[in-house]
Amino acid sequence: MKLTDKLAETVRKNNSRLCVGLDPDPELMPGKMSVLDFNRAIIEATADLVCAYKPNLAFYEALGSEGYDILKRSIQAIPDDIPVIGDAKRGDIGNTSRAYARALFVQLGFDAVTVNPYLGFDSIEPFLEYHDRGVFILCRTSNAGAKDFQSLRCQVGKTTQPLFEIVASKANQWNTHGNIGLVVGATYPEELKLIRQRYPDMLLLIPGVGAQGGDLAPTIRYGFDTQAEKTVISSSRQILYASRGRDFATAARNSAAKLRDRINQQLAR
Amino acid sequence: MKLTDKLAETVRKNNSRLCVGLDPDPELMPGKMSVLDFNRAIIEATADLVCAYKPNLAFYEALGSEGYDILKRSIQAIPDDIPVIGDAKRGDIGNTSRAYARALFVQLGFDAVTVNPYLGFDSIEPFLEYHDRGVFILCRTSNAGAKDFQSLRCQVGKTTQPLFEIVASKANQWNTHGNIGLVVGATYPEELKLIRQRYPDMLLLIPGVGAQGGDLAPTIRYGFDTQAEKTVISSSRQILYASRGRDFATAARNSAAKLRDRINQQLAR
Repeated sequence: MKLTDKLAETVRKNNSRLCVGLDPDPELMPGKMSVLDFNRAIIEATADLVCAYKPNLAFYEALGSEGYDILKRSIQAIPDDIPVIGDAKRGDIGNTSRAYARALFVQLGFDAVTVNPYLGFDSIEPFLEYHDRGVFILCRTSNAGAKDFQSLRCQVGKTTQPLFEIVASKANQWNTHGNIGLVVGATYPEELKLIRQRYPDMLLLIPGVGAQGGDLAPTIRYGFDTQAEKTVISSSRQILYASRGRDFATAARNSAAKLRDRINQQLAR
Repeated sequence: MKLTDKLAETVRKNNSRLCVGLDPDPELMPGKMSVLDFNRAIIEATADLVCAYKPNLAFYEALGSEGYDILKRSIQAIPDDIPVIGDAKRGDIGNTSRAYARALFVQLGFDAVTVNPYLGFDSIEPFLEYHDRGVFILCRTSNAGAKDFQSLRCQVGKTTQPLFEIVASKANQWNTHGNIGLVVGATYPEELKLIRQRYPDMLLLIPGVGAQGGDLAPTIRYGFDTQAEKTVISSSRQILYASRGRDFATAARNSAAKLRDRINQQLAR
């Protein structure tokens, strides 16, 4: 099934546009708990509240030799009908990006991944060749450093545009199979507004609400596509670490339910 | 020991500015050979001819669950005095880049890594905090797609500069601990010339000679620092797959020796 169809089905089934980031940090987890058990508990507690899960590979790689197996088994613990986005931010020369695409789509079986555009089209093409998978290109990231390069005004013909707008424009041109999305942080609502106005139908992955401080109301007002089936709001720490005690799973469920409902209430306005 | 010192010692000891990229592709290796045995044979055949090794993580991740262990044991097979550069091209928001830095510097023990600048300073800072390690920031990559964004002319004050020059300028500003380098492809000799003229003392990692078609003569003429101790020419496929038969290790040694000597001959001109 195509990623866009799979996502739309889960959005409808769970009435949710919330993606939970599975970014396990042993220092923030309840003591003496294994990362895999933590992830499984979070998944079990939230699987009827989300439209997707998004493990960030950094947190698994930081675990050393155990990390890969924990990631793989965490993915297996996710119900098959829920899309899993591998937040990998990869990108390399074509020959090497082909190996990354194989690692992420074949070996780990992600439904979608995030990629970095700095190396240009031939670094992204090997991912796009998996037509049923989604490829979210970093556009305007949620961090403070995003301005260092993404906001630079670049010459395009006789005018200038910020780099992130040019990335979005190229991504739109490259989107011949309909499997490209963009990552735009909730921390930059004006930029989000502009991108969504320009590409009303594109997949958007929006991190930055919650711990990063992005405001939910403008994110919902500006960020959504008309069907509200191609926009994914991602939150990690706010949900995973809602409680650091034994009740972490219940607390995560409550936090996820609250955020899902707030998104839906804002959408209904 | 600081990366620059470790690199300079190996450059002198082996009279070499050649880095061998350890990018194992089972389809190009001699039949029925394990990737680890292949890497070990390549390392044994070339360890007195190189200034560094550079495993690209994509090729290990593409191997699935075995990949991490193979990478770790390949790194262990490299003599301790030879710097190992993890070609990872990572970069994420600060909290997440911290996890990547831990994965690469602590868990895998790389002497240096490559990182992607698109997310800006706070995505690179967690790597820089390891003062004894090297951080090579992608500047002008060796692939055709490099032009898509890296060549865009961006406004800086009242003038314009290509994006990759602005990345280089920022990298130079951020280099307070002397552990930043740049990746500049041999396939763009004019850009390499400009970067080296502007930053005569900066660490440079130069891929793109060999299979990618970069010409060696201008690379050497334009790319080197005055001491010829901070410039690393990287080649992978040309050496690893010089022969696809049983004599692959001897063929790799011959290919590496030839390239090392050609670099040194050009340098002596």
